[in-house]
Order: sequence, then structure tokens, then C-alpha cells
Amino acid sequence: MEIPVTVRFPTDTSLDPGTAPETVERLGELYSDLDRLDLQPLWTQNKQLLSRAPRPKAVPWMWRRVDMIPLAARCAELITISRGGDRRVLALANPGLDGRPFITSTLWAAIQYLGAHESAPAHRHSPGAIRFVLEGEGTFTTVNGDACDMRAGDLVLTPPWHWHDHKNESDAPMTWFDGLDLPLVNHLDATFFEEYPAEAMQPVRGHNLSEQIYRAPGTVPAVASSGVSVYSPLLVYRFADTEQALRSLARDSGAAMVSLEYVNPLSGASVMPTLGCHASRLAPGQRTVTERQVGSQVFVAFRGSGTTVIDGRSFDWGPGDIFVAPSWAAVDHEASTESYLFRVTDAPVLKALGLSRHTVEGRNQDVLGKFVGHAEAP
Amino acid sequence: MEIPVTVRFPTDTSLDPGTAPETVERLGELYSDLDRLDLQPLWTQNKQLLSRAPRPKAVPWMWRRVDMIPLAARCAELITISRGGDRRVLALANPGLDGRPFITSTLWAAIQYLGAHESAPAHRHSPGAIRFVLEGEGTFTTVNGDACDMRAGDLVLTPPWHWHDHKNESDAPMTWFDGLDLPLVNHLDATFFEEYPAEAMQPVRGHNLSEQIYRAPGTVPAVASSGVSVYSPLLVYRFADTEQALRSLARDSGAAMVSLEYVNPLSGASVMPTLGCHASRLAPGQRTVTERQVGSQVFVAFRGSGTTVIDGRSFDWGPGDIFVAPSWAAVDHEASTESYLFRVTDAPVLKALGLSRHTVEGRNQDVLGKFVGHAEAP
Amino acid sequence: MEIPVTVRFPTDTSLDPGTAPETVERLGELYSDLDRLDLQPLWTQNKQLLSRAPRPKAVPWMWRRVDMIPLAARCAELITISRGGDRRVLALANPGLDGRPFITSTLWAAIQYLGAHESAPAHRHSPGAIRFVLEGEGTFTTVNGDACDMRAGDLVLTPPWHWHDHKNESDAPMTWFDGLDLPLVNHLDATFFEEYPAEAMQPVRGHNLSEQIYRAPGTVPAVASSGVSVYSPLLVYRFADTEQALRSLARDSGAAMVSLEYVNPLSGASVMPTLGCHASRLAPGQRTVTERQVGSQVFVAFRGSGTTVIDGRSFDWGPGDIFVAPSWAAVDHEASTESYLFRVTDAPVLKALGLSRHTVEGRNQDVLGKFVGHAEAP
Amino acid sequence: MEIPVTVRFPTDTSLDPGTAPETVERLGELYSDLDRLDLQPLWTQNKQLLSRAPRPKAVPWMWRRVDMIPLAARCAELITISRGGDRRVLALANPGLDGRPFITSTLWAAIQYLGAHESAPAHRHSPGAIRFVLEGEGTFTTVNGDACDMRAGDLVLTPPWHWHDHKNESDAPMTWFDGLDLPLVNHLDATFFEEYPAEAMQPVRGHNLSEQIYRAPGTVPAVASSGVSVYSPLLVYRFADTEQALRSLARDSGAAMVSLEYVNPLSGASVMPTLGCHASRLAPGQRTVTERQVGSQVFVAFRGSGTTVIDGRSFDWGPGDIFVAPSWAAVDHEASTESYLFRVTDAPVLKALGLSRHTVEGRNQDVLGKFVGHAEAP
Repeated sequence: MEIPVTVRFPTDTSLDPGTAPETVERLGELYSDLDRLDLQPLWTQNKQLLSRAPRPKAVPWMWRRVDMIPLAARCAELITISRGGDRRVLALANPGLDGRPFITSTLWAAIQYLGAHESAPAHRHSPGAIRFVLEGEGTFTTVNGDACDMRAGDLVLTPPWHWHDHKNESDAPMTWFDGLDLPLVNHLDATFFEEYPAEAMQPVRGHNLSEQIYRAPGTVPAVASSGVSVYSPLLVYRFADTEQALRSLARDSGAAMVSLEYVNPLSGASVMPTLGCHASRLAPGQRTVTERQVGSQVFVAFRGSGTTVIDGRSFDWGPGDIFVAPSWAAVDHEASTESYLFRVTDAPVLKALGLSRHTVEGRNQDVLGKFVGHAEAP
Repeated sequence: MEIPVTVRFPTDTSLDPGTAPETVERLGELYSDLDRLDLQPLWTQNKQLLSRAPRPKAVPWMWRRVDMIPLAARCAELITISRGGDRRVLALANPGLDGRPFITSTLWAAIQYLGAHESAPAHRHSPGAIRFVLEGEGTFTTVNGDACDMRAGDLVLTPPWHWHDHKNESDAPMTWFDGLDLPLVNHLDATFFEEYPAEAMQPVRGHNLSEQIYRAPGTVPAVASSGVSVYSPLLVYRFADTEQALRSLARDSGAAMVSLEYVNPLSGASVMPTLGCHASRLAPGQRTVTERQVGSQVFVAFRGSGTTVIDGRSFDWGPGDIFVAPSWAAVDHEASTESYLFRVTDAPVLKALGLSRHTVEGRNQDVLGKFVGHAEAP
Repeated sequence: MEIPVTVRFPTDTSLDPGTAPETVERLGELYSDLDRLDLQPLWTQNKQLLSRAPRPKAVPWMWRRVDMIPLAARCAELITISRGGDRRVLALANPGLDGRPFITSTLWAAIQYLGAHESAPAHRHSPGAIRFVLEGEGTFTTVNGDACDMRAGDLVLTPPWHWHDHKNESDAPMTWFDGLDLPLVNHLDATFFEEYPAEAMQPVRGHNLSEQIYRAPGTVPAVASSGVSVYSPLLVYRFADTEQALRSLARDSGAAMVSLEYVNPLSGASVMPTLGCHASRLAPGQRTVTERQVGSQVFVAFRGSGTTVIDGRSFDWGPGDIFVAPSWAAVDHEASTESYLFRVTDAPVLKALGLSRHTVEGRNQDVLGKFVGHAEAP
Repeated sequence: MEIPVTVRFPTDTSLDPGTAPETVERLGELYSDLDRLDLQPLWTQNKQLLSRAPRPKAVPWMWRRVDMIPLAARCAELITISRGGDRRVLALANPGLDGRPFITSTLWAAIQYLGAHESAPAHRHSPGAIRFVLEGEGTFTTVNGDACDMRAGDLVLTPPWHWHDHKNESDAPMTWFDGLDLPLVNHLDATFFEEYPAEAMQPVRGHNLSEQIYRAPGTVPAVASSGVSVYSPLLVYRFADTEQALRSLARDSGAAMVSLEYVNPLSGASVMPTLGCHASRLAPGQRTVTERQVGSQVFVAFRGSGTTVIDGRSFDWGPGDIFVAPSWAAVDHEASTESYLFRVTDAPVLKALGLSRHTVEGRNQDVLGKFVGHAEAP
């Protein structure tokens, strides 16, 4: 008896050696029919689909400033910014993700480089972006007409569907970090994109308008309370303020690491529903606890130096280095000098969807952590 | 036939002149029986209970700095602060409220005066309080161990059930405005009070701790996101910041008045669930629109001078003057010089309970305004 | 030396016997000046204003069916329902409230009586109302055109600013319990009232429309998700359903009392922001724990009989009896037969304003209970 | 001059024909260096990454009952349910998704088949599941001890991390539809899975416990209000109720289609944060408007027959047929007889993340639709 070669047995189907030939034949026909009718058996693949704990394809990885900046400068020499490819951006491509230009399955991370007196034209898109300035000044990002000046350590938001362009008015090149939810928004089939009509750059209404309005901590324009946007109306957060606040927190706590979250001042929520941004200060010589959490974390070393261990792999970092912790990786840090890390995550996504889990190694007995709102077994 | 004098007819019962005597008698017996059994007929009083629009007992009124400060100083000479009556506070008693020491049915407003090197001992209570500093410096309010320095124009919060005391370390007396939700909390039968155990003053952990932690606009401690308090953890808001933010708003808007709300940075909600605090800047020579809103408003003139018309009654104000607009009063303002008003209201209460209404005179045709979430007639 | 008789010393001012005459004179002048300028000293009255725990004026009290129904019938004979006093309502006036027709400082409770073939014309008001049917059938309440049939044990809502009228189409009189937030809304100076234009009764679009749409537990019209009202769109809750659900709860729990809350199916919130409605089933012969909570509770005994102890005062109740527990009163129940209690409270108000406290006697050591979101002493 | 073959030019790099050879060489070196350092240029691929509108890989497709049920029966003959592959499930594999067993990038859809007297052992996982019963009865799904009886048209929930097993106690096989968020949860690297300890089936506490507790529309257990789960505590929704509610809606509206959403009765939110479930009734002979929305929709035809057009492709359906509309596809329906459709979507995800867009063809001029909370161009 022969089974036709066109029959596609699922690759992990293991037939009992003593299976009767007619059963093998009937199985072959069954799998063929299923395949023809766009049906797939779960029983041949459920181990892959339902893992005991997350098995991200993304791997722990680091990109060094010393590699990235010279490459970006070489790009600037050879590649102009034009309408067809309107940003000079180098995406950090996680080696685990099969050549896709994403740092994890949900996050985009990149270096953006603007030469002296260069500009990048306006567009808008449904993926949201944050910019964290690595070095330089003299550049601004205009967001719906509000030109946000960018200096080292500042965080600038370009929320979903806001027009934005970048302009370097200085004599020196400028580099910053881009963080986007693009891989997630693409996966959700929710990507929209539009170029700015007519002109390349949008008109500027003024500089740092949102910053001036929200400059008083804990105050918001009275009119804003009627309709709270899911995106922060405050578009720029200054490092000088963040640093002082972190120092105050550190003085009170004495912990190895203290952290601030950047929030929407109208609601206290994350700056966008898809992206969470944090700044941390690490005290030298103290190792943090080892933690796992569901969701992706991209770290940007801004000041200082130290070592981060991610799933047993050690990364020594200094200013401008960027590294990534995939979901559920065990992470701890130890700084050798007073250090400041910026971090962008998809934590708001996991939280909104009820999928957050968190565990501290050695403290929780159960490596699976706990769900928020988790229902225990009967 | 005689009706016994002990029969209590409801005062507004109007009997038809032709009513038969036996009916009058039976009515008399009925009203007596109702009264004896603690029942009251609605039909004799529903006009009072259900008015076409609010008819607050509180009246528009103003208290002048020139009257209040000298009186407070005279009190300081004659009345010491002691455990039995542990604050030197003069309550602004609305003349419409039958001698009760309240400025409206929901709000308490007062002047508090602390002589050079005096202090007021710690206690806590379920009513929440805000302090707006009228003049002076060198005093601090300690709230759960955080000593908040007070300077003219600053807002200091003492949220419900937080230990608080006041200390003047300077050589000059200090005066500030107190706003509380005490009349409302009393009416709700929800008042709790406790004196600080053992010592008169609580220990100070540090000065301006919350201010230092929340100093970076739009940032919050990362740990705070897990449990958001209904009270703002930021305890002091500086006038210098507020003023700059108001000027930025004014430059963008060109309106007669621009306003900021002081909020809980963890949630964007009002500083307490019962009290809303606003700061406004009035441009000179421009009259605001005339508005009515449900709820009480207490205004503190901080800088500048102008005129506010409340239900047709005109009040000329200058620095330190305090005036009140009862619920649903028509209010407009016109400043003669650049002016700053502080305002405390019960608006968060009305909003939380679905009772907010607002109308702009001459713009809305219906003087009754609109409810939020209002269901129209079929 | 004589002090003029016009000087008003605060009633509780106790002068030290050795006070110098000139000080007494200056004090007298001070208090006179304060009074003239509408200022009141806190130090003479803060014990009254800030009590260690709530001291409601309302007292525990009960109104018996056997008293109320015959009186209501007598009213029906003598008092017609007319436009000027358009409801035949007997308010339960708490003896502690100085003759006001309120059952507590926040709640209105009443018996409403409609004779055979009588009707009460349409109006609407910002206070919200609930109706709990004590006995009878054949009457309906029309709410914005939806005629809600009323049977014993049913809860019918007439949310704020919804047109409503009542019509008895049967040959027998009908009695129900009214619960309103009127005392609170009046205190907040937020009362609006309007009579239905032109006709006495509004047109009926259909009977039990909301009930039919929300009849499937856990489902809502898909269009409703866009704009959730703060008032429940489900206007009637049937006792037959409630009873079955309570029995299911009781079977699972074995507790002395199990309770359901009636909620807005669009949000799970209380039926209105100002009123919470509960139904409880008491198992016979079991005494509940003794609890205190901030806020007012009005109980309507629907079926069965038992005893409730409120601040040490014992009330024996049977069907149709109504009793009240003031804020912070200690309450426990013991049913002698399987019993059903309906309860209306202001708990949503206290919760929204952060003023909820709750304590179980003998279990919490601190009689003051705990605030939700309470900040502990340093 | 030659470019070494090892240089990887990005596939869509188009070099200007007149590019100088040394520039080509330097570009080749640049792209090699970028590739080696895990960096990728955006300018070569941004058209793919940022599309003008969503371009889902999933295609409109339909699976017919007449194909699926016999195949499932053949599987039952040949494949036993065992611990290693513990469900007899046929996944509906969208032909656009490169052989993955998913119906869209976010949703899993499948037919589950349980033979007479068969059972499927207990497990739990972080992906959430809903079951919609196509035909049969006599089977129950036990969820954390609550055995939910399943009849045709019923919806049964097995929320994330709840133990669940299935048991057919009847003499006939049973088929139902499975909808899961598995593709999304996998993409988010948030998948956890656990087999039930020790025994194959969990103990049953009772049948339809949640149904009995939540059977009264608009009521919830009073204890539940303190901690609201993000998952519905009501685990089963009966078709008989749903059908009546839809008929009531239809009678009031007269529209071609009316819809109910199944919700969490504690919050009015979708049954899970990741899955929305709807039931619709279509009136015969009326065509709905054509709509696009961001997000995936899987339709299960339960009763009746009709035609649905998805992006211009027409699908004729009858009872038991299942079809899918990818994100942003234009969809309209026309029933030939009174019809009932069940629908599962990822709409709650898009809404939570601020990515919802919706447009009605021919009504909105802009094919891009509108974002919720969308910021317009300056």
C-alpha cells in the first residue's frame, strides 16, 4: 500500500509504529482534506502555541554608541533625506527576529541622525513615537505646530496622528533615539500614514508651547479637563528636571535604583496607551534585585556606566549604548558610577490587556509570577 | 363646632372657603395624626422642596483685607493658641446662613493668623483643607512629616486624615486663607477628628519633600502607579510656576481670563474629591462672559484689582479681598490691572454626583442650562 | 466699668475669673467687631465642628406599615392630586431633624399612595428617585415615555431630569416606597424642577421597553458603549429575579445575610451617582455581625420578620415597615423567618468623595474604622 | 570595479544609473557594515512599514459547516484526546497567513468536537477563550469549578488563567466554536500555560453557579464591588435571553441589523480586555450600510441565511458557517431570512490602545476615517 506523496502530514505527527496501514492511509487522507479546506489540527502543534512561559524570539542584545554614531555619519554622507525615504534612521534589528528591523515583536528602536542644517519633512502616522536625545542641541521637532527644542537627555513625544518634522538649525550633526510602537501597530493591522500636504515642513506656531503651559508641576489648563486625550498634551520633558527629581527620590529611598515615569499630566497615564517611558537613577556599587516582567524593555544608557545581566548574559554599558530585554527575561543592573538610564516599554499594553506579570527572583517561589486580577484554582 | 387648638395644620395649607366643617375637622385630625406619627405631607411644601432653579441661602458677599488683617492681629494679642482651641482662625460667615460660620452650605473659608514664632499643634480630620498664602513667609505647614514652606501665592494641601501642624519661625506674623469642605462633610455626617498623640508637633522628616519628588512636570515616581490615592501626593504648588504658566496660556489665548486647575499629578483629578482649586489671570480692561454654574465658588484676590458682578451685585476687589458666588449665581469679572485670582470650589462634588450644570448668559437660550449626560424629554 | 449689653460674646466663651477688666472690655469689642464684619472665631466652636466621630442629628427610627397605610388611605379620601401639589406622598420625618421632612440629612423616604384609577402628572427634577413597590399591581410609572409596570418587590428608577408620571389603572389603591436624594441635592443648591409642558401626562412609547432590551443578563445594546450615562438605562428590576439570585447566593455562602446591589448595566456603578440600592436575604435565626459605616441607610422590610438593633435600640419589623440607621450607627440584624430587606443608601456619595469608612465591631480594634485610601501617621 | 558578492544591498535599493562607482562601493561597504552590526536603514523599507492604510495579510474567507463537521467527525474516529494534545480542535487557518493556524494576526478561531461521553482534561493559560455553541447539548465546560452547561447558541467564557475542562455526558457528539486571543498573546510574548495538577478533571462545585448569581439583569453580588475583575465573573450567556433582547431592540429600531454586546456585569466592559463578543439580528431583505473598522472580526452564522460582502467579495452563509473580515475591510450584510450572527473581535484591544477607527462608506468623505481622540492638523 502506498501513501501518495502529495499527502502533507503535519511535520510533528508521530505515528505509532504499529499503526495499521489502513489507518495510516485514512490519516493521510484526513490531513490532506484538512489542508485543502484551510483547517489545521491543534493536537500536532499545541506545545508550540501554548508554552509554559513566554519564549520570545527576540534575544537580549546591545548596540554600542561607538558603532552606531560613525555609521550614522557615513550614512549622512551618502544618503540624502528625500520625500521618498524621509528620515535618516538606523533601526536596531534584533538578531532573533529573522531580519525584521524590530528590536522586539512590539517595539521599534532606532538611531536618528540629522546633519547640520538638515531637516526631515512633516508626516503623521498612527504608530506613536518618542524621541530621547543622546547628544547635541540646536534641533527641534515640530509637533502640530509646536516646535520642541531638543537637548541631551530630553524626551520629546510625537503622539499618534500628530504632524511632525525635525529641523537641525545648528552647525553640528544631531543624534537621538527613536522608540515606536510600530511593530505592534503593524501586527494589529492598524497602521495609517500621511504626508504633510503641499509643503515639506509645517508652519511653526511657537517654540515649546506645551512646555510653557504645563511648566507648573501639578497644574493643567482649566479647559483641558472636559476632554482628556489619551496622548499626553505635554510634548517635551527636560532632563534637568528629571535629574533633580530622581536625586530627591534617591535621597529618600537609599535603593540601588529609583525610577520616574513620564506621564500624561491630564490623567497620570503613560505618555501614550502603547508606550511607557521611564528614567532611572542607579547608585554606584549596588546591585538591583533580579526581576522578570511580561513585556519588552529597551534601555538607553544616558550617563554613567555599569553592567546589566539579562537572562544570564552580561552587558557592560556606557553613555549612548542601547540594549534590550525581551519579555520575561531575568534582569538586574549594577552601576559602577552614578548612572541614568532611560527606558521605553510596552508595559501599558500588557497592563491594559490584563496580561501583566511580574516576579522577583528568589522572593516569589513561583517562577510564573502572578497575574493582576488573577483567579486562583478552586 | 370647634377645632381643638392642638391641631397643627401645615402653615401653608389653604382651605377652600367653602370646605364643609366636618371635612375641616377630619383634615385637622389627619394632620394631627400624621404629625404624631412623624409623617409629613409633601403637597403642602413641595414648592419649597423642589424649586425651578437653585435658591441658595448663601448670598454674594465680600470680606476685605483691610478689615480682616487688623482684626486677626487684635485676636493674636488677646487669644493664645492652646490645645482646646488649637487654631487662630476667623471664619467668613455668610450673612445668609443664619449665623453659621460657613461661607456657603458646602465650603468653609477663613483667615488663619500665626504670630511671630507661634505654632499650632498637630491634628487630623476627615474634612480636607487647602491653604492659599496671602502674604508673608517663614512659616511652614507639616503634613505627615513633610514640612511645606509657605510663601505668598503658594497653595498648600492638608488632605483628609493627614496629620498637620503649622509653625511660624519668622519674626513677623503670617496670614493665609483656609478653604475646607467642612460644611459638606458635616452635612454628610462623615466628620472624624483626632489630636496628635503625645507631642504637640509631629516630627519633621524634611522640608518640601513632595515638591522635590514631583518637581519635574509630567513625571511621577514609578512605584506610585500601583496605588493611586484620591488625594494629591504633591502637597505644595508654587505661585512663581503658576504665574508663568498662566502668562503662557494668556499669550496663546488672548481671552479676558485664563485659568489653571491644580491637580493630583497621579491622576489629573482635582486635588481632593471634594475641593477644586484654580488660579486665573485676568487681562486688564476686558470683561469676561457672564456664567452660571451649579456649586459654590470662593474667590481670593491675590494680585491686581478689578470688579466682579455676582447676581447683579458689584464687588470691587484688591489684594487680599475674599468674595463668594453662591450656586447658580451669574458671575462676570473685569480687571483694571493685570490680576490673579485664586478660587476654591465644590465643583468636583457636583461633577462626581452628576449634578453639574453650566450656562453662559445670552448664549444658551435656556436659563436652566444643561445637565451633563442629561436625558431629553421624549 | 460696664460692658454694653449689645456685645455678643460667643455663647461658649469662658473667661478666666481673674481676667483683667480692660481685657474683658477689649475682648467684648473684638467679638462685636468680628460679628459686625461677618467673621466668627473658630476657637469658640471647634469642638462642635470637628467631632471625634460623626454625630448625626438623625436618630434611629421606625415607621410601621400598620400606621402608614391607613393614614395614606385617609389622605386619599381628603386630598386630591392636583397640579399644585402633584403627588400624594407622606414623607418619613426623622424626629431628630427639627421638623424637616427628611429621614436623614441626605435622604428622603416616603410612602406614595395612588387610588384606583388615579394618576399623578408628569414632571422632572434634578434630584433622583427610586420606587420600591410594597404591595399591589396595575400601576405603572412612565419614565421618558417608557411605561414601567410596577408589582410588589419591583424597583423602578426615575433618574434625575427624566420626565416621570404615575398611573393606577386598577380598581385598587397602590402603595410604594419613594427614596430620593433630595435633602442632599437641596443642600448642594443643585435643585432644578420642571413641569411637563402642555399635557398632564407624557405620551407612552411602550411598556417595559428598557426591561426588554436589558433582559439578557450581562448584555447591553451595542450602540450604548459609545456614551455611558451616569444613570442606569435599565429602569425596572423585578423581584422574582432578585429573589432567585439571592437564594443562589445564600446557598453558596451560608452567611446570615447575603446582598445584591442593583447597578447600571452599562458600567456596574450604582443606579445613580447619589443613591445605592441593595436587596438582602436574611437566613432565619442567624445574627449578622455588628457593623458601622459612614452614611445613611434606609431599610424597607419586604418579606419575613426580624429584629434590627441600631445603636443599641431594637426594632422588630415585618412586611412594609421602614426603618433608618444614621451615619456611623452600629447595626445588626436577626431574622425570625426567611426575610428580604430592601435598602437605599447614600454610599455612592461617600465613596465618590473618599469619605467611606467601615468597621466591624469586635473585629477592628479602632472604632474609627479606616478610610479608603487613608494615609497613616508618619 | 566589482562589488563583492557578499555585500547585501537591501533588496529595494534602486541606485541612480549615473552613480559614481566609488559611491556604489562605499554604499556597498556601508550596507555590509550596517548588516554586520544589526542595524537596518529605514529609507529602503519605510513604504512597507508605514502604509497609507492597513494592509492585513489575512484575507476575507469563509469555512462551511458542511465541510467542517464531517471532517471533525473523521478526526474523532482517528484521533483520541490525550494529555499530550488535549483538545480535538480544528483551527481555521487564514490562507493569507503563510500556513499559520490563525484566522487573523490577533484571533484564533476553531471548531472543537467532543464525541459522546468524551472529555478534555483541565488546563489553564494566559490567552483567553470564548466558546459559542453551534449545535447539540449535554456537554458542560467547567471553569474554576463551575460547570457551565452548553446548549446551542450559548456563549461560555473561559477567561485567562482559569482552569477549564470540557465533558460530554450525552450520547451524541457536540461541536462548538472556539475564539481565542492566542495569536495576539503569543505576539506579545505573554503566553503562560499550565496543566491541572494531579487529576485530569477538576472537581465540580456545582452547575451554572455564576449564571444563578447573575441571573437578575442589572444586579451584582454586593461583595463584588470592592474588587472588580477585568474578566467577566458571569461565565455563561444563554441564547434564549439574547434572542429576546435582540427582538426587543429590533422592534424599537427598524434597522437592518441590531446588535448586543456581551459584557462584564461588574463593569460593563467587554467580557475580556482582549476579546469583544456581539450578537446581531438581521432583518430579512434589508442591506446594512458598508462599514470599515480597524481590527479583526470573525462571524459565526447561527440561524438564518444571507450574504456578506467583504472588500468586494461575496459570501453566502447559512447556519454553522464561519467567515472573517480582516482589519479595515469594507463589510456589509443582507439576510434573506431572519438571521442571527455571533461575532468575536479584537475591538477592545484597539480601543484600549487608542487605535480604533471607523468609517461608513459614502457617508464620511475621508476614507481614512477618524481616530478616537484624534488631533487635527494645525
